[in-house]
Amino acid sequence: MADFTHFDEAGNAVMVDVSDKAETERVAVAKGRVLMQPETAALIAGHGVKKGDVLAVAQLAGIMGAKRTPDLIPLCHPLALTKVTVDLMLGDDAVEITATCKLKGRTGVEMEALTAVSVAALTVYDMCKAVDRGMRITDVRVVSKSGGKSGTWTAD
Amino acid sequence: MADFTHFDEAGNAVMVDVSDKAETERVAVAKGRVLMQPETAALIAGHGVKKGDVLAVAQLAGIMGAKRTPDLIPLCHPLALTKVTVDLMLGDDAVEITATCKLKGRTGVEMEALTAVSVAALTVYDMCKAVDRGMRITDVRVVSKSGGKSGTWTAD
Amino acid sequence: MADFTHFDEAGNAVMVDVSDKAETERVAVAKGRVLMQPETAALIAGHGVKKGDVLAVAQLAGIMGAKRTPDLIPLCHPLALTKVTVDLMLGDDAVEITATCKLKGRTGVEMEALTAVSVAALTVYDMCKAVDRGMRITDVRVVSKSGGKSGTWTAD
Amino acid sequence: MADFTHFDEAGNAVMVDVSDKAETERVAVAKGRVLMQPETAALIAGHGVKKGDVLAVAQLAGIMGAKRTPDLIPLCHPLALTKVTVDLMLGDDAVEITATCKLKGRTGVEMEALTAVSVAALTVYDMCKAVDRGMRITDVRVVSKSGGKSGTWTAD
Amino acid sequence: MADFTHFDEAGNAVMVDVSDKAETERVAVAKGRVLMQPETAALIAGHGVKKGDVLAVAQLAGIMGAKRTPDLIPLCHPLALTKVTVDLMLGDDAVEITATCKLKGRTGVEMEALTAVSVAALTVYDMCKAVDRGMRITDVRVVSKSGGKSGTWTAD
Amino acid sequence: MADFTHFDEAGNAVMVDVSDKAETERVAVAKGRVLMQPETAALIAGHGVKKGDVLAVAQLAGIMGAKRTPDLIPLCHPLALTKVTVDLMLGDDAVEITATCKLKGRTGVEMEALTAVSVAALTVYDMCKAVDRGMRITDVRVVSKSGGKSGTWTAD
Repeated sequence: MADFTHFDEAGNAVMVDVSDKAETERVAVAKGRVLMQPETAALIAGHGVKKGDVLAVAQLAGIMGAKRTPDLIPLCHPLALTKVTVDLMLGDDAVEITATCKLKGRTGVEMEALTAVSVAALTVYDMCKAVDRGMRITDVRVVSKSGGKSGTWTAD
Repeated sequence: MADFTHFDEAGNAVMVDVSDKAETERVAVAKGRVLMQPETAALIAGHGVKKGDVLAVAQLAGIMGAKRTPDLIPLCHPLALTKVTVDLMLGDDAVEITATCKLKGRTGVEMEALTAVSVAALTVYDMCKAVDRGMRITDVRVVSKSGGKSGTWTAD
Repeated sequence: MADFTHFDEAGNAVMVDVSDKAETERVAVAKGRVLMQPETAALIAGHGVKKGDVLAVAQLAGIMGAKRTPDLIPLCHPLALTKVTVDLMLGDDAVEITATCKLKGRTGVEMEALTAVSVAALTVYDMCKAVDRGMRITDVRVVSKSGGKSGTWTAD
Repeated sequence: MADFTHFDEAGNAVMVDVSDKAETERVAVAKGRVLMQPETAALIAGHGVKKGDVLAVAQLAGIMGAKRTPDLIPLCHPLALTKVTVDLMLGDDAVEITATCKLKGRTGVEMEALTAVSVAALTVYDMCKAVDRGMRITDVRVVSKSGGKSGTWTAD
Repeated sequence: MADFTHFDEAGNAVMVDVSDKAETERVAVAKGRVLMQPETAALIAGHGVKKGDVLAVAQLAGIMGAKRTPDLIPLCHPLALTKVTVDLMLGDDAVEITATCKLKGRTGVEMEALTAVSVAALTVYDMCKAVDRGMRITDVRVVSKSGGKSGTWTAD
Repeated sequence: MADFTHFDEAGNAVMVDVSDKAETERVAVAKGRVLMQPETAALIAGHGVKKGDVLAVAQLAGIMGAKRTPDLIPLCHPLALTKVTVDLMLGDDAVEITATCKLKGRTGVEMEALTAVSVAALTVYDMCKAVDRGMRITDVRVVSKSGGKSGTWTAD
């Protein structure tokens, strides 16, 4: 197993040098889920057909959150994302969130996709917390990435 | 079950009016977990005794993340947090994260605590992703809150 | 006519001292308008009944924009807004925007309301520019304010 | 008339994919105006010859505002602007604002130019509001753009 | 000599709890200096009488920088500053910078004053670096503070 | 001696046009120092061997600060930094700070390196101020730069 890349030999945290990496098209997809009471999911569903849509607010927050990744994650490089989409699907007792980020650049965009999912999930929590304080954000993970030296990777 | 508070009668999203709420001491505690390979946890443990500490970087990111909550969550009020702590505990195949936020103010700090946990978890992912791409952020939830009209609440 | 308050005697720009002002409830309402082709307004109307609502995106952007006021306007005080609402109404060839901000604090919130209107208007422009490049943001102004030493003021 | 580009088929707001657009030089010019009492304009003029220059403060705010565009406008791409200028001209009862933004990149910079004008205008309002509460920001619009697939466009 | 306050017993960095501190008026004054070639100071002086004033740009940057303190300094509390002034004085081979911050609140504002001085100094460097790369920012320090439990303190 | 580049002929501050500059690899190294009581340095040294490390917190703050440069310095271009490292060395009565920034781009990264040093130094001050209010940040300067038309430069 390789060692961490975010520390130098003296143990200092570093924003690693990506200057010599190739500018390739990089895509990452992340997913996550907000578990909730069925009544909460029903309430979201009820609002979804008119204005006041929890999922639309969370979706926008996720897109904006992706852009804040380098402000939030200490050792992330600032990146000029070329595409961000966030989708939310309402189930019986959960909201499933998928985010896709894309870049022509020198480093991957997994963190941007994961941040988009997390911020969208936090926004769902915020908007529903008055009716369901026990919600849980869970299974936030990268499901696939492509581009760069390590090529394409897909979670099992 | 009550209705959502973040929409007005016309269905518009609003930052709800808290002007008339009392300024009380409000505390919220949130928790979450990053699941990982035992080898990854062992690698973090190996670094923890010298500089280059994954947990210390993530902890700081969590504290700073709490302060960015109103920038990230669309309908959150800007708050003058009076205390933020973030603790990370390394297990055999996970990092357990706990965040506590405190405020003398007119609205609760659950979102700040949840955001601190999420940003700390994302930072753990970022620092370890080169060795373990399959990590998962899971069980991000509020475990207790106190202060305000709804009083003290603790998750089962 | 009084002199500017944002410069000291030497002509230096200052964030003026409000420490001795009373903490009162302050409200400001601002309005503005995005002029557009009737076809553009019709297109927005067509989207408004399902997801993909230009007005909902702009409304959220306006609320978030209000919170960024002290980052944008050099001499504005950082304020803990207690309420922000933004409403958009679609006319035949325009979107009318109204923002209301509220604060228990030592200085007024006109700039927050104006910034909310401006950011909502810019977002309408952004989302419709591919179909109507000639839109105009116009008549952005304060229509009323209350609270503080100068009391209530309403535009004619 | 074309449809909006910022929504996918399901009606979700997206940051549209620009990965495959060519990196060309893109320029946009936007204009706007702050209408005010002639006495206010005279007061600004009086300050302009020494320090304490309203227009200089607003100009700088406009340049900095252009850089915050992706933080403010939900679906704007983060861009590495290569040039921003903002000019303010004082008339008898108005300040005329012009902003020019430039980029070697994959998407246009109209929103950056419009945001620069808006933030400069808001700053003029902020600095003069103690003497003239009835000012209006008006006629904020794109006057020309060049670069990219749609080529050069000039407002009539 | 006391121990650091920013770590708990376990050695974790914390944003220390100030909830129980009294809300008093707190003022801090910080100073600093940018050393430069006499020719550079002369060039600044030449610009100062008309528009294009290095000192005015740096002064504004300093005020705005004070507001970003909690974003920059990991363990600083977010504060609602009630006053910020920054003054720059041009000497023969230096710019002397003084910043004053004020707050009715539960914690001191030294960091805000020091950040204002640092950002103003960095801006002087930025604007003059094309003519004088060897400038130095020096003697950035707190010269006085008042308010809070520790009372008034003045540097010798 | 050349004139300032950050003003146009009319004296307006501008973000200068770098569109036509070549994309080369640019590196800048900056240094600075926080002077303190020997007792304070000893206290930092005592903490350094376990968690609660002042230098590690300041180092991370410096890296994150480099990314905020275009938000802080009015006329700096937004840049996609490809590497940032910050090193802190503890002496008998001082902390020596060195920051290195790197970019494949059209403009230099001196300001990013200087900002990293300044933010790291401010963070050292923040964490030690409870035990040593008289610390000074000093000798913040560029020590070398390379890349771009002006080539390599090293301070004497």
